[in-house]
Amino acid sequence: MKAEILTILKDTDGYVSGQELCERFGVSRTAVWKAMNQLKKEGYEIESVQNKGYHLVKTPDILSKNELVSIRKTKWVGTEICYFDVTDSTNTQAKSLGEGDAPNGTLVVAGKQESGRGRRGRSFESPAGTGIFMTLLLRPEIEPQNASMLTLVSALAVAKGIEHMVDLPVQIKWPNDIVINGKKVCGILTEMSAQMDYVNYIVIGIGINVGNEEFPEEIKDVATSIYLESGKHVNRAMLIEKIWEEFEDYYELYEKTQDLSSLVKEYDSYLVNRGQKVRVLDSKEPYEGKAMGITDRGELIVDTWEARRLVAAGEVSVRGVYGYV
Amino acid sequence: MKAEILTILKDTDGYVSGQELCERFGVSRTAVWKAMNQLKKEGYEIESVQNKGYHLVKTPDILSKNELVSIRKTKWVGTEICYFDVTDSTNTQAKSLGEGDAPNGTLVVAGKQESGRGRRGRSFESPAGTGIFMTLLLRPEIEPQNASMLTLVSALAVAKGIEHMVDLPVQIKWPNDIVINGKKVCGILTEMSAQMDYVNYIVIGIGINVGNEEFPEEIKDVATSIYLESGKHVNRAMLIEKIWEEFEDYYELYEKTQDLSSLVKEYDSYLVNRGQKVRVLDSKEPYEGKAMGITDRGELIVDTWEARRLVAAGEVSVRGVYGYV
Repeated sequence: MKAEILTILKDTDGYVSGQELCERFGVSRTAVWKAMNQLKKEGYEIESVQNKGYHLVKTPDILSKNELVSIRKTKWVGTEICYFDVTDSTNTQAKSLGEGDAPNGTLVVAGKQESGRGRRGRSFESPAGTGIFMTLLLRPEIEPQNASMLTLVSALAVAKGIEHMVDLPVQIKWPNDIVINGKKVCGILTEMSAQMDYVNYIVIGIGINVGNEEFPEEIKDVATSIYLESGKHVNRAMLIEKIWEEFEDYYELYEKTQDLSSLVKEYDSYLVNRGQKVRVLDSKEPYEGKAMGITDRGELIVDTWEARRLVAAGEVSVRGVYGYV
Repeated sequence: MKAEILTILKDTDGYVSGQELCERFGVSRTAVWKAMNQLKKEGYEIESVQNKGYHLVKTPDILSKNELVSIRKTKWVGTEICYFDVTDSTNTQAKSLGEGDAPNGTLVVAGKQESGRGRRGRSFESPAGTGIFMTLLLRPEIEPQNASMLTLVSALAVAKGIEHMVDLPVQIKWPNDIVINGKKVCGILTEMSAQMDYVNYIVIGIGINVGNEEFPEEIKDVATSIYLESGKHVNRAMLIEKIWEEFEDYYELYEKTQDLSSLVKEYDSYLVNRGQKVRVLDSKEPYEGKAMGITDRGELIVDTWEARRLVAAGEVSVRGVYGYV
């Protein structure tokens, strides 16, 4: 009921009558009053005026299941939401749900991660109250070899989602980092459980630096937050909602062809090093070339003076020759 | 100590002196006597003769951690063995070990599976005492897209392993079933947990019908056991050992090139429908052709009257036009 009351409060400009809420949910005035008090305790500023009813003055930056449910407009992402104030890692939780029978679209969100992981098991800083840590569980009807492109689909959704909230030049560092003004603001870790020809499930983990006011010395040249770049305190729940709304649209295009043919243009428009010199840190021999964009399969096209080369996502690390990105 | 005593008993033709065992393990005669009694209880026929010592008369078909450890000759497979009399599914157990820090080469073996699974979640019959149910955990340094070939590597190892035990025409039904006289005797289910470019772990699950004396009416035309085909009761622990010895050799060849280029010839020699007409049950349109062998990547080469087609493992089902296989 609390999430539904929240939705009604948010959708109403003026006052919501207590009597109406009683009738709608078939509960007593005391029950409504109690729910309002709980919401106030959680941090919502709710004004109650005799003979008029309740009014939501302000929604602070609250991350909770109720908050996420109350603003959800997505079609299938987040029909199930698992929220943790603190968890080890949302990917770990989502994989465990994947081994069970959690449905496609289940969303795991945490206020804080205690052992967040980046690619190849690198640790990932996850302080409380400042970031978004979430993982989407998918059970897609796709072939395992097409799964890695989902990371690029997700990167697009995050970039577009952030643009909804702040007026900043959001870019993608191929394949799966989101950067603002040359510094990383988001990382994405896609993991898959698969049989030879069959995907058991996929989890897409997304970590975003939202409200961080500073970073440790050793990473502050390469990491940033939305707050640091924009000076704005962005509502995390709303950003989450925007990202998954965008994701659903992009995913639909991806799903039709099981490749990125419909998304190449848009992805390329976000590509941070496009048209610039990059160094590809191949496992054999590093080389330099100009990053031209991506292919339908999500490979990075790099033109060297000898030939056009296609870089498969993740095989290598790509660096701008000038600066970090 | 029990596994080591077993190894000594097995490696000794005559009698093993109790005194020698005491000295070797630094324990009392009573401790040795107790260990012998436990082994007898587990089913080992051990003769003890005053002033001569202990002699292993016969090893019945016992599946246990001690038995497996006592005969292990592999280099790295099975350095850790998890044995269950009964478990849900050895793949489930191995995946759970994979999420933790179990080492490469960990082997899960069960006497009976309660919810064994075949490909795409199909259930798999796992009665007690008659079969081999095991799963190998790998943490290979390979690219995710090369993982599915491991199923074919494993199929080779199983075929060769069975040949060590019985004189039967063992064949492989591409990609991953082992058949004898046209009936299925073994299924293999490979599963993987991966990131975009990085394999977290792979589990290779192998189920073999060894001692089954009959099969339910509905599958007896397509399923068989080593016993039914050979009339021989094969020692399961020994068969397991032989399979992984073969696997290590094949795996070494696979690992060098991360493909099957060194194994194509041998695989083709086991291929049940080679040179014969097969029907490929493509998801779009079934077609017929002649199965010619496999490619370096493990695809099945099918020549139709129009063209040569490559069938990717698992995308489709291949049936012999005449009979089941």
